[in-house]
Amino acid sequence: MVSPASAPIADLLAARRPGHSLPAGLYTRQDVFDADLQVFFGQHWILAGLECELREPGDVQTLDIGRASVILLRDDDLQIRAFHNVCRHRGARLLKAGPGVVSRLVCPYHQWTYDTDGSLLHAGHMGADFDRGCKSLKPVALRLVGGLIYICLSDNPPKDIDVLAQTMEPRLAPYGLREAKVAHQTDVIEHGNWKLTMENNRECYHCAGSHPELCVSFIAYDFGFDAATMSPDERARAEAHVAEREAREARWEAEGHPSRTVARVVDCATNFRTQRLAIAGKGESHTPDASAASAKLLGSMTRKDLGDTHLWHHNGWNHFMGDHAVCSIVIPLGPDSTLVRTKWLVHQDAVEGVDYDLHKLTSVWIATTDQDAELVRVSHAGVQDPAYEPGPYSRHTEQELDNFAGWYVDRMRVHGY
Amino acid sequence: MVSPASAPIADLLAARRPGHSLPAGLYTRQDVFDADLQVFFGQHWILAGLECELREPGDVQTLDIGRASVILLRDDDLQIRAFHNVCRHRGARLLKAGPGVVSRLVCPYHQWTYDTDGSLLHAGHMGADFDRGCKSLKPVALRLVGGLIYICLSDNPPKDIDVLAQTMEPRLAPYGLREAKVAHQTDVIEHGNWKLTMENNRECYHCAGSHPELCVSFIAYDFGFDAATMSPDERARAEAHVAEREAREARWEAEGHPSRTVARVVDCATNFRTQRLAIAGKGESHTPDASAASAKLLGSMTRKDLGDTHLWHHNGWNHFMGDHAVCSIVIPLGPDSTLVRTKWLVHQDAVEGVDYDLHKLTSVWIATTDQDAELVRVSHAGVQDPAYEPGPYSRHTEQELDNFAGWYVDRMRVHGY
Amino acid sequence: MVSPASAPIADLLAARRPGHSLPAGLYTRQDVFDADLQVFFGQHWILAGLECELREPGDVQTLDIGRASVILLRDDDLQIRAFHNVCRHRGARLLKAGPGVVSRLVCPYHQWTYDTDGSLLHAGHMGADFDRGCKSLKPVALRLVGGLIYICLSDNPPKDIDVLAQTMEPRLAPYGLREAKVAHQTDVIEHGNWKLTMENNRECYHCAGSHPELCVSFIAYDFGFDAATMSPDERARAEAHVAEREAREARWEAEGHPSRTVARVVDCATNFRTQRLAIAGKGESHTPDASAASAKLLGSMTRKDLGDTHLWHHNGWNHFMGDHAVCSIVIPLGPDSTLVRTKWLVHQDAVEGVDYDLHKLTSVWIATTDQDAELVRVSHAGVQDPAYEPGPYSRHTEQELDNFAGWYVDRMRVHGY
Repeated sequence: MVSPASAPIADLLAARRPGHSLPAGLYTRQDVFDADLQVFFGQHWILAGLECELREPGDVQTLDIGRASVILLRDDDLQIRAFHNVCRHRGARLLKAGPGVVSRLVCPYHQWTYDTDGSLLHAGHMGADFDRGCKSLKPVALRLVGGLIYICLSDNPPKDIDVLAQTMEPRLAPYGLREAKVAHQTDVIEHGNWKLTMENNRECYHCAGSHPELCVSFIAYDFGFDAATMSPDERARAEAHVAEREAREARWEAEGHPSRTVARVVDCATNFRTQRLAIAGKGESHTPDASAASAKLLGSMTRKDLGDTHLWHHNGWNHFMGDHAVCSIVIPLGPDSTLVRTKWLVHQDAVEGVDYDLHKLTSVWIATTDQDAELVRVSHAGVQDPAYEPGPYSRHTEQELDNFAGWYVDRMRVHGY
Repeated sequence: MVSPASAPIADLLAARRPGHSLPAGLYTRQDVFDADLQVFFGQHWILAGLECELREPGDVQTLDIGRASVILLRDDDLQIRAFHNVCRHRGARLLKAGPGVVSRLVCPYHQWTYDTDGSLLHAGHMGADFDRGCKSLKPVALRLVGGLIYICLSDNPPKDIDVLAQTMEPRLAPYGLREAKVAHQTDVIEHGNWKLTMENNRECYHCAGSHPELCVSFIAYDFGFDAATMSPDERARAEAHVAEREAREARWEAEGHPSRTVARVVDCATNFRTQRLAIAGKGESHTPDASAASAKLLGSMTRKDLGDTHLWHHNGWNHFMGDHAVCSIVIPLGPDSTLVRTKWLVHQDAVEGVDYDLHKLTSVWIATTDQDAELVRVSHAGVQDPAYEPGPYSRHTEQELDNFAGWYVDRMRVHGY
Repeated sequence: MVSPASAPIADLLAARRPGHSLPAGLYTRQDVFDADLQVFFGQHWILAGLECELREPGDVQTLDIGRASVILLRDDDLQIRAFHNVCRHRGARLLKAGPGVVSRLVCPYHQWTYDTDGSLLHAGHMGADFDRGCKSLKPVALRLVGGLIYICLSDNPPKDIDVLAQTMEPRLAPYGLREAKVAHQTDVIEHGNWKLTMENNRECYHCAGSHPELCVSFIAYDFGFDAATMSPDERARAEAHVAEREAREARWEAEGHPSRTVARVVDCATNFRTQRLAIAGKGESHTPDASAASAKLLGSMTRKDLGDTHLWHHNGWNHFMGDHAVCSIVIPLGPDSTLVRTKWLVHQDAVEGVDYDLHKLTSVWIATTDQDAELVRVSHAGVQDPAYEPGPYSRHTEQELDNFAGWYVDRMRVHGY
């Protein structure tokens, strides 16, 4: 008797129906999780952090991705570098989790010592003939885009990171992320598969029912609607909003503020999507009343009313606004456990309590992330139920989930599954 | 080198020797646990709850069985219904664990809304052509027997539930379980395989050494004895008890109180056994002194001295007495972890502190269940030891374990293992 | 797509390069852990305890090794015995963990009762024809060496325990371990594979950087050094120490104190190594100032300056000194979890607070063990990183690791992997 729980992963991929959520095993199985880590977090570019977190020479952070740990540091020449956090002697972790400052990287086990460029400077008792040159720290592929740090654990990283870089460099430049600072950071562990975390983020169909705080700033019509089942009045409102959005987008573009949607979400390795959307209400920022949280605007921004530059990856989402930015990085921890790390950025000179109030700055996305964590939990509980079968995505409000699911299946196949 | 830990399940089943406990792997292996859940909790009828827990329209409970979750509710027409707790959209859990009251079932994710009969009433943004009719909640097979709720997760539930129903309806009728209430409930997690929990329950060989409280009410001779190794005096007492029991049983039967043993424990799908046994001491109830705990008797009962109607399933045990009933439901949680949920029932009009004292009502089975949990723990610790080999059942006191083990092997084979 | 995580164990063994640490999977995989338990803890002799822990008839201890539990007891004839802690009825554990005193072994489940020689004395309700003779407790192979208790869970234990016994009996005799007592015991759970625990113990390359307390007593040169990369001054000091050690060893041997290294670490089943090394500083004991902790010397010892008789096994390490001994037993708990149980022995007549101060006695190895636990944790974290590759052992300071890794691979192959 063969349990469907042991079907080859390829069969699960083949069973995916367009317009529908994924077969259960793709969300729940350990072997699929292992494959996901290897493919989507081992062979693709992922957002790993921010340059401004490594401001001074010797500033260092580690990021754990599955069983891997990556060291991100700024070296003595002010260059950002990424290395595997594994001593070349007997493999010990060089650095603990969290931020720090180093002059050299010294293994705690036998004091093998590496320069900040990764070269092995010292290894005791290894004999006069020992070749230190071949025992440098293993580098990790790195790409800096407008202050964001992308890494790829593969030795053969996808080349289409160039498209992301070319698109985002000019869009991010005004936000001056290299001169920002992290005002706050939260780690939330969601009790669900990372793809449910991502699906949850790629639609706002659930916002009205779950996110009262975010709905002050978000405009539901921006995320799709089913005109055919609306009342004539509501349909008129929705269509008026779309016309207004298009006019605003054209105006922003004409003023030199890139706003149009750029989406690379199918037929690509590096999955991203960006667009500039207006903020509702006071129109400035994701705060309880949609007014700016920080008096010091980011980078070279001079206006608070330029909306929200959204940027979605397959491992997170970002909102860049006049006064602050919110960056969320998603790291799978297990088939049913996912880390969402969220960072709030303000201008590096903004002073807490003077230029910004921390609660006002963070409360909307703290609430939203907690609400999403609960939705991901009930989603995961359901998809692992033997009674679950893939359900229909709304073609009006869940098109991005269909794209994501299709991209997921394609990329798994490209990588041999 | 092939480890015995990876032998096919069929080999383990074939290795079972009559008269002996099961081969270790059948108690300990994850794949056997998965098979057990699928076969014994997915393809057989299980006791799931009590009608009196869903007294009013909209009363609802959920029960988790492995990865499945089942909604039990009383609909607006007072009918009991059972559904899979999985939204037909993207699979989210509709209801949290525990009891509640609902008018409709609204998914917390995107507010898909179902009637209490399971039909999908509303799903937003799905397009004018969306066919709600094929997206009703999936029903779960349901059978009500004398106030007990049986469910079967299979689409093809065993038909011999009829035998149980025909046997138990008249036996349970006098206890009026539909007009009872749950006075107390406990959840005990036993650190052992569910089959060890069931084996433990199917013999009273261990009672003298472990259950001083229960031994006030139970008469050890009722559960078998080895006459050949008894002293002449003790043998005479045992045989006198058996003769007395038979006479009493005939008398009760003649008075219209069904008492004789009905056992369907081999060559059947639906495993149950019932008999009415006298209670020792004051003869009324499972309490510290064997006197009734509740002044208001159950249903139409007018006598406290009609003993204890035992009812055993493959997932629990029940005792129906004049003043109260105790129902235990067994749900496997893992190869070495089992939930025992026990409910104490009294007449719905009985008032705590007036008609019954809660401690007197519950203390015997609370103590007994805790004692059994410790025995199951040491049993499981032992059977997973590489030195364990199946040991001999006493043919005098452990015959029901032999029957259970044989039935287990048969049912596994029927289901393809 | 075949993941390297599923390569046959034999492939991992074949991939081991001499002079290098083991391939990752041998440290991390569950199937390798299961094999390790079966081979190294199921088919080899392991140090299990000390005779002096079972001083009186009826004194009993249990030791858990993987899923097995072993009873060690002293019977009524003062003989030490070892049994599997599994009732021959339905497998229940006879004894809980920890030390105790018994007159007979009575199963808590159905009171089957065994004599301290393992024979079944009583089993109720089993019928007149029941053959108790074939239901004795299963014995475990046992070998007593100078007060140390070795057990082997195999029915066919390696015969070369004789070499260990012949070597160690005369070396241990003066320490009178049978008349010692355990003054203190600690259990430390190291978050790493047991082989990393053993590798850590087999070199002192890491001592200077991690063990300030132990370095008061240990002399780093005793554990190897790379003369070629030393300064002329340091090389002279190192070589002078070696010459001094050799002279001292010859003197001790001439005086009748066995001191020369005996190593059976390759081409053998029973892996051990012993040598007597001088203690640094005050030269007496592993204490904060290297002076003796106990005023009453062990056994027939009359001198405190006879150094430290080291004894390494594949599951632990021991130091026998004039005033006390430290014995550490290593038991794997999981692929990434290992128990290190350490016992400090003094003369049985030594009185705490009078003859010895407990803190002085224990503080060096408590600190050292905690420091090693952290090193094992960072080692395990690193070797499970996909970026880990086996690194080079120093041929000067890590030769014993190379021997251990080679022996490990050989023994796995001997046992069919």
